[in-house]
Amino acid sequence: MTTKPPKHFTSDEFREMGHSTIDWIADYLEHLEERPVTPDVKPGDVRASLPERAPEAPEPFTDLLDDVNSLIAPAITHWQHPGFFGYFSCNSSAPAILGELLSAGFGINGMLWSTSPAATELETHMLDWLLDLCGLPDCFRSDGKGGGVIQDSASSASLCAILAARDRSGGASELPKLVAYTSTQAHSSIEKDVKIAGFSPDQLRKVEVDENFAMDPEELQRLINEDKENGLIPCFITATIGTTSSGAVDPITSIAEIANKEGAWLHVDAAWAGSAAVCPEHRSLLEGIEKADSYAFNPHKWLLTNFDCTAFYVADSKPLVDSLSIVPEYLRNPASEAGEVIDYRDWQVPLGRRFRSLKLWFVLRSYGAEGLRSHIRHHVEAAESFAERVEGHPKLALAAPVSLSLVCFSHVDGDDATKALQEALNSTGEVLLTHTVLDDKHVLRLSVGGTWTTSTHVERVSELIDEILG
Amino acid sequence: MTTKPPKHFTSDEFREMGHSTIDWIADYLEHLEERPVTPDVKPGDVRASLPERAPEAPEPFTDLLDDVNSLIAPAITHWQHPGFFGYFSCNSSAPAILGELLSAGFGINGMLWSTSPAATELETHMLDWLLDLCGLPDCFRSDGKGGGVIQDSASSASLCAILAARDRSGGASELPKLVAYTSTQAHSSIEKDVKIAGFSPDQLRKVEVDENFAMDPEELQRLINEDKENGLIPCFITATIGTTSSGAVDPITSIAEIANKEGAWLHVDAAWAGSAAVCPEHRSLLEGIEKADSYAFNPHKWLLTNFDCTAFYVADSKPLVDSLSIVPEYLRNPASEAGEVIDYRDWQVPLGRRFRSLKLWFVLRSYGAEGLRSHIRHHVEAAESFAERVEGHPKLALAAPVSLSLVCFSHVDGDDATKALQEALNSTGEVLLTHTVLDDKHVLRLSVGGTWTTSTHVERVSELIDEILG
Repeated sequence: MTTKPPKHFTSDEFREMGHSTIDWIADYLEHLEERPVTPDVKPGDVRASLPERAPEAPEPFTDLLDDVNSLIAPAITHWQHPGFFGYFSCNSSAPAILGELLSAGFGINGMLWSTSPAATELETHMLDWLLDLCGLPDCFRSDGKGGGVIQDSASSASLCAILAARDRSGGASELPKLVAYTSTQAHSSIEKDVKIAGFSPDQLRKVEVDENFAMDPEELQRLINEDKENGLIPCFITATIGTTSSGAVDPITSIAEIANKEGAWLHVDAAWAGSAAVCPEHRSLLEGIEKADSYAFNPHKWLLTNFDCTAFYVADSKPLVDSLSIVPEYLRNPASEAGEVIDYRDWQVPLGRRFRSLKLWFVLRSYGAEGLRSHIRHHVEAAESFAERVEGHPKLALAAPVSLSLVCFSHVDGDDATKALQEALNSTGEVLLTHTVLDDKHVLRLSVGGTWTTSTHVERVSELIDEILG
Repeated sequence: MTTKPPKHFTSDEFREMGHSTIDWIADYLEHLEERPVTPDVKPGDVRASLPERAPEAPEPFTDLLDDVNSLIAPAITHWQHPGFFGYFSCNSSAPAILGELLSAGFGINGMLWSTSPAATELETHMLDWLLDLCGLPDCFRSDGKGGGVIQDSASSASLCAILAARDRSGGASELPKLVAYTSTQAHSSIEKDVKIAGFSPDQLRKVEVDENFAMDPEELQRLINEDKENGLIPCFITATIGTTSSGAVDPITSIAEIANKEGAWLHVDAAWAGSAAVCPEHRSLLEGIEKADSYAFNPHKWLLTNFDCTAFYVADSKPLVDSLSIVPEYLRNPASEAGEVIDYRDWQVPLGRRFRSLKLWFVLRSYGAEGLRSHIRHHVEAAESFAERVEGHPKLALAAPVSLSLVCFSHVDGDDATKALQEALNSTGEVLLTHTVLDDKHVLRLSVGGTWTTSTHVERVSELIDEILG
């Protein structure tokens, strides 16, 4: 041997650098409110601050942390800032961060049960815990035909549902005749996923919504009838609980009846709103869910777990695994062959898998069911208070019914005034609100859900609005 | 407000628990060699050790770490064990772990440039750094039509390539006529990806390989001619640099000529072997790569970066973005509309994105180019020594040419003897070797690549073999 291995950190160096990194994060989070939510950078600024090439020789770790501090932290949008009300939040929490850290420390690939039994079994178990916490129906529990799996995102979960549906309906040979349905308000990922699965744009029907932006089931049935008359096959329906634009809730029970009758796969996307089901008072949102074929929600949005953590459930795993399983010789092993175990690689698109259940386990135990419920309730109450102030404000109006912790509102003077308000709010650096369009109107979304966001921060938005509108 | 927010860790608690977690990982890695590589667990063992339901009240963090110690660590396959020679390794390293930790601490979603400029720009920059480190061609550099992006896995990278190719060739309306090509030795993910994209199994040709398990370009051309005569359209070719079974290298130059001439997209999958290109002496592997449309390799396999980190390059990003971009109102923003920035959500399947470039940045700077080269060279030399011992051993024979640090070998007495040797080796707990099938023969793979694996550990495999075979 002529070449020595590279110099790794010693155990003591790792401890020291690890402690520094933990302390850096603690400082960052502790003082986050002092930073503007969005950075003041122009395209190219960050790259211009970086050397053109990787270094030839190792650099000390302290330089890295210094650069994180001076180059990176000032140039990110601070999703963990308590004044972040944009999009839907990406939750985080101390136990989730440390669960993610441990996952990195283990450095395993849980593609098969046999390549890390605890990773697979903890994941199955956590999805069952979540099912009980949210009052989800038994059809999604792992002890029957169905079960749950962690995906990286709701987009990937709905893609898996579409693939299972497509292949259950005949797969590639029937593909030109298959039709998918969702509402005009569904998330754009549905359109993307359907396209990925090989459908053409005209094989996706966007069903009209009612005055509350929820799918109109009669219109769904009408489109299905029309398609069937034209020799097409209704294959896949996505309903949404809590749309991205306004938090609208599609009528799952009616849609499920249609799906079941027509033999179409029903996927229910509750990416954001699903976390609210930890509170019994919000479970009516899920009415009819026991008739769905699959269901997904994101603990990484509103359940204190770091991105990525989408909980994806299927009532019957067979069509999913039939669609996604390919077993080459080099992945064969006795446990899989015996059919006694779950190999989650067959429940997702990629082969490799991180140990994501650790962070979920840490969160569920660190907060307990009561902590999770408080998180949701505090935000819902804060959003309701804000909505009341909007309703009482002479220059503002709600643009949609308040949905959990999402408040859509606009200026009564029209789009220009609403845009000016958004611009003024965001330029304070204290808050970030993003927009949508509803009924052709520019609408502001106050999405309350950040880990560190409290009613005080929501009240501050009202104060800022009063200051701006005078 | 009646409901208080949940009790989060205080900053001091986070520091304390964070330091404990770092110390736990340091201890784990320091003493990893004392553990058996694979755990002694039966299906269901881990779940049986867990409570049936999530707790109602918070539990102390020390209980979590205790349970990680007693329930999880003994029940995982230790991919970071220096005696792990199975599959291909999943690299890890102190700087990568801490980069992942920081990414969790920031908790951002880098779906758009505007949702975290530094996340996008650091990623673009790191992919350019890697390009220079590996001597990749300029067509993949970000300052032209092409560029790089981090994907979660090589499977996802090849899926994106297939989607771009499919849609460049006409998309859904032409789909029934499109054909994809790869070798019989390509990774199973290609078959899975092609199926996901809506191709039927008979739209994927598996080209025969030569005696070294590399794709036969004449056979590829013959199949293409046959398909064209049948009115079909050659759409997509995947060539592999370093196949999973035996590390075979397809002749990229010849395949690229065919692909370019026929108008088919050429994707080159170098998931494992690509990292070796940090050493100039291994760059001949990449010959012809400048004629490919896309290229992927996994720093998470053999370049000291934690899973997930696949570097995916395209020579022209337009077909990729055309295939994967869908822009709803709620994601519109001035920077994207101006076309001045990259929005990486359009370069991948899911919408959301973690801040994965941080760990790559940390690794490249902490090891420097010289450290990365030592890592590869040390392993390649260790594998070569092992191969020499196999060749000199009366009961063993190489089953394929040694490829970088992958040695395929078998017992001269046939499959039963090879399987018995594998079983005996793995049951020592000191090492893990997995198998493949080559020319209908059961073959052991010694895949040298673990972060902590040195020549001493490879020599130990030889010693164990000598002890077992007597």
